[in-house]
Amino acid sequence: MFSRISSLAVSAKPDQKTIQTKAFVERKLQIQRGNARHNLRVIPLGGLEEIGRNMTVFEYGQDIIIVDMGLQFPDEDMPGIDYLIPDVSYLRGKEKNIRGIIITHGHYDHIGAIPHLMEKIGNPPIYMAELTRGIVVKRQEDYKDKAPLNIRIVKKIDRIRLGSFSVEFFHVNHTIPDAIGLSISTPVGTIVHTGDFKFDHSPVSDAPADIAKIARLGDENILALMSDSTSAMTPGYSLSESHIAKTLDEVFEKNQQDRLIFATFSSLISRIQSIMLAAEKNGRKVAVDGYSMKTNVEIARTLGYLQIKKTTLIPINKVNEYPDNKVAILCTGSQGESNAVLMRIVNGEHRFVKVHKNDIFVLSSSVIPGNERTVQSIMDTIYRHDAKVINYEMMDVHAGGHARQEDLKMMINLIRPKYLIPIHGNYYMLKLHGELGVSVGMDPKNILIGENGRVIEFDYRGNGKVTMEKLNISNVMVDGLGVGDIGQVVLRDRQLLAKDGMFVITVIIDGQTKKIVGKPQVTSRGFIFVKENFDLVNATKKKVEEVIYSKISPTGATNWDYVKNNIREVVGQFLFTKTQRRPMVLPVIIEV
Amino acid sequence: MFSRISSLAVSAKPDQKTIQTKAFVERKLQIQRGNARHNLRVIPLGGLEEIGRNMTVFEYGQDIIIVDMGLQFPDEDMPGIDYLIPDVSYLRGKEKNIRGIIITHGHYDHIGAIPHLMEKIGNPPIYMAELTRGIVVKRQEDYKDKAPLNIRIVKKIDRIRLGSFSVEFFHVNHTIPDAIGLSISTPVGTIVHTGDFKFDHSPVSDAPADIAKIARLGDENILALMSDSTSAMTPGYSLSESHIAKTLDEVFEKNQQDRLIFATFSSLISRIQSIMLAAEKNGRKVAVDGYSMKTNVEIARTLGYLQIKKTTLIPINKVNEYPDNKVAILCTGSQGESNAVLMRIVNGEHRFVKVHKNDIFVLSSSVIPGNERTVQSIMDTIYRHDAKVINYEMMDVHAGGHARQEDLKMMINLIRPKYLIPIHGNYYMLKLHGELGVSVGMDPKNILIGENGRVIEFDYRGNGKVTMEKLNISNVMVDGLGVGDIGQVVLRDRQLLAKDGMFVITVIIDGQTKKIVGKPQVTSRGFIFVKENFDLVNATKKKVEEVIYSKISPTGATNWDYVKNNIREVVGQFLFTKTQRRPMVLPVIIEV
Repeated sequence: MFSRISSLAVSAKPDQKTIQTKAFVERKLQIQRGNARHNLRVIPLGGLEEIGRNMTVFEYGQDIIIVDMGLQFPDEDMPGIDYLIPDVSYLRGKEKNIRGIIITHGHYDHIGAIPHLMEKIGNPPIYMAELTRGIVVKRQEDYKDKAPLNIRIVKKIDRIRLGSFSVEFFHVNHTIPDAIGLSISTPVGTIVHTGDFKFDHSPVSDAPADIAKIARLGDENILALMSDSTSAMTPGYSLSESHIAKTLDEVFEKNQQDRLIFATFSSLISRIQSIMLAAEKNGRKVAVDGYSMKTNVEIARTLGYLQIKKTTLIPINKVNEYPDNKVAILCTGSQGESNAVLMRIVNGEHRFVKVHKNDIFVLSSSVIPGNERTVQSIMDTIYRHDAKVINYEMMDVHAGGHARQEDLKMMINLIRPKYLIPIHGNYYMLKLHGELGVSVGMDPKNILIGENGRVIEFDYRGNGKVTMEKLNISNVMVDGLGVGDIGQVVLRDRQLLAKDGMFVITVIIDGQTKKIVGKPQVTSRGFIFVKENFDLVNATKKKVEEVIYSKISPTGATNWDYVKNNIREVVGQFLFTKTQRRPMVLPVIIEV
Repeated sequence: MFSRISSLAVSAKPDQKTIQTKAFVERKLQIQRGNARHNLRVIPLGGLEEIGRNMTVFEYGQDIIIVDMGLQFPDEDMPGIDYLIPDVSYLRGKEKNIRGIIITHGHYDHIGAIPHLMEKIGNPPIYMAELTRGIVVKRQEDYKDKAPLNIRIVKKIDRIRLGSFSVEFFHVNHTIPDAIGLSISTPVGTIVHTGDFKFDHSPVSDAPADIAKIARLGDENILALMSDSTSAMTPGYSLSESHIAKTLDEVFEKNQQDRLIFATFSSLISRIQSIMLAAEKNGRKVAVDGYSMKTNVEIARTLGYLQIKKTTLIPINKVNEYPDNKVAILCTGSQGESNAVLMRIVNGEHRFVKVHKNDIFVLSSSVIPGNERTVQSIMDTIYRHDAKVINYEMMDVHAGGHARQEDLKMMINLIRPKYLIPIHGNYYMLKLHGELGVSVGMDPKNILIGENGRVIEFDYRGNGKVTMEKLNISNVMVDGLGVGDIGQVVLRDRQLLAKDGMFVITVIIDGQTKKIVGKPQVTSRGFIFVKENFDLVNATKKKVEEVIYSKISPTGATNWDYVKNNIREVVGQFLFTKTQRRPMVLPVIIEV
């Protein structure tokens, strides 16, 4: 059906290497380790609570390779911050050692820091599959003045040598095609890194994960398995994308008279394929809207990862030329993002799409923690238009991209590693993933739970441990054009300003008479509505005058910092007593 | 087992009234309506997206009764706001008409506005069950200078007359004992209001909902059913609290060697009872910590709603005198609230409780949308201490307090109302609840979906409709001592300040020479770290000077507002170009 499925799909035929005997493998490993002169160091970097999702460094002697280079979205206590990128200060002075970077798939939490970091680390070669490349290159175009990337495409059976490292790939499933896992051979042993993965025996627009190859890797005495913990909390097996496709098909069949509006993540290429197939089967045109959605559809289509009939797509400005039952809309904004297309449609601000009575909005994604109330409010607005919503709580219109407990156990059983290093998740998810390892027979001592910046080390005998060495790193905040210029002080100020606003007091002092010129002036925002609180403001001005006249030196030089601190304290306490609020008090004193 | 279960538990024996014939009831209703001279008006008030949870007004001619008087927690776009209370401006001038207030149960979203609103509306009598009273009185004590409340306790079979209204009660289940539903007789017909409810056939420390009485009400030709929509999205039946109690018991039995630390809402009296029973059965002492938890335990115990053996409770400062396997801790903070006990224990800031290796933390609550990341981060910290978490995703350690779809259908089937008015939920939940009504045979035209401030009206023939009349109300924000003094302007300022901080420019002008005295001064917070950005600050000062000298009138009077607007615009644009951030620019110009 597809002219071209993932370039990483691999035949199940074992190659020469895999029919070597166990004893031979063991011997080879001994020779390999006999040559080892260094410890292998594995260091997860980046991410807030999540460990190792955005970036991991592998270091052996003078050789470094890096897996992924992504961004992380900020917590709610980081107002105004666009996103966070990994702190790569550890690599300073080691740029020449970096043999290459490998990107596991095209999601922003794995590629998003590339425009910010590549030049900093000397623009080393960067390896990735074809679709991933399409997305990375497009993002790079959005940043001007960046040196071109040195991208090398990897194909299904490639084996690349990067200094002391040799890396093989295997195909895994995720919510985007061309996701790869890695088998990284090092002088002290082989580490398998799953990337973000799930097993899907019937994926859409993709091949099933290459379980045969994963199983063959398991024959090679794998030293450690680094495996995706995102869904380690969830029992059972992950849902197949084709199950979701079937549900989406049902949605079309059951709502033949009504217009259908699908909102999902623009990165869910497989979901986009499922929606297109269902639309075609049910004789509907599809209008795609949203910058990232249109971009990704174009990239994936050009590269053959999305199969859409030429006659299916219509421009969004033609959507009203078709009756409701002959058209579907596919757009961004399923998380209630304020500028995304869904929000504009629902709020009546979209140029071409107005909500029709009986429209069906299909929210084909999960809700990211923190977005619940916004999404609920979108649902309210949709229902107020007499339209309806179908979401993942009502029908199986979304499947996650990560292996659940039974899948994780299967991965461990296939790889049979000496060590398990759970990655890609909060600390507690890693611990729960570790418990799964123990439940399938692993030695609890061989579960290595790391944290960002902490070094995991393997010696020449293949003994691994989480060391006491922790790099001095912090997340680098990106805000507008500023990268890393926002620190804890600025962030803390933003939090305080948000909570109770600010209160600036400007006082002019006559340098000769040492008297206040005129009255102190007050400029306040976010605290109280000043125009309705003259009494409070006047009382505060009086307090300020008292402080100044009690602290000013009538003859010699006055310590103005001391006076300001006093004003801050007295005014802060006064306003708190009167209002139980603590605005940021900022005295400005100017001597003329 | 309990010396005293809910005062509202009702015998199943029908009283004289309910064996009247259908024809008799119909006749009575006709007479009743024959006397009707006014329309009945029902107005939900308060709440953000949720409709009618906090307060509802019933008005018939010169008679008003009010159901509930609660508070609502703010959205994430309302920084610094403590909570919101209903806008009662509609009642201004009608204070003398208010015959009474009825409180359905003791949760803050139903009682929390009492200290703020009762004096405003003339302190009318307020009716509630015994446990509810205990909690209301305690909260009132926290507010000084308030006139005493005129509280009247209602008992299981009371029927109270309030002007043209007559109100009967029936017992329902919720996560707190003494929850009541109301049957409100009016000259145009009877309205049944469920309050927050679920059916629990085996509740803990409470009697099952009085289904017999609810069924008898159904014989009386009920005009409208106002019913709880909180869980209208959730299929099936709600879980029984005794199922949770059994799971909690299992937790004790399976973890006999480890210390157990339970965190839950202090208002979940039934949950507290279940934990106490399980602890006693398993021979453990319990230390209770957290102000609201200790208060509620004391109130519920004093009134006989909580059965705890005298020897079970120990003070929190004695907790270390017992071995881990002989003690349990019960505390507040399951939502990751920053000052609550759980956070202090986990962060090592609790005076008496340090986390022990292998401690089991049982988070016996759901996670309120918006708190997910905070709770995940608490779980991380617990696992870093080598302790463990059990939450509602892992075991049934929590049950919600609201009727699910099958329960809601059962309520409709029992009451058989002419109209269904879904309440207590977002608009879309009300719509889904309405669809449930249709699915059990109600006429879609008889589903009345309201909104806060919109009047629902019933005429003397018993015809109801959602009118076009919408009161001009907004939520009243409480911030510290201020009630309603924070408006949209202040809130919007806080949001802007949080996002990109602020930039105050102070300029002194010599009134005679019309020259700037010295240099403009800059005070900035939350924007950039000024000390590291001298160039940008100096360039900005230069821009300010340019604007002033180009706009100042060298001879006549200068329009300073005009100059200030110019500075705001020029500096705002300049800073945005340089940083892609938009701090709030505040020029202060003082002429001396």
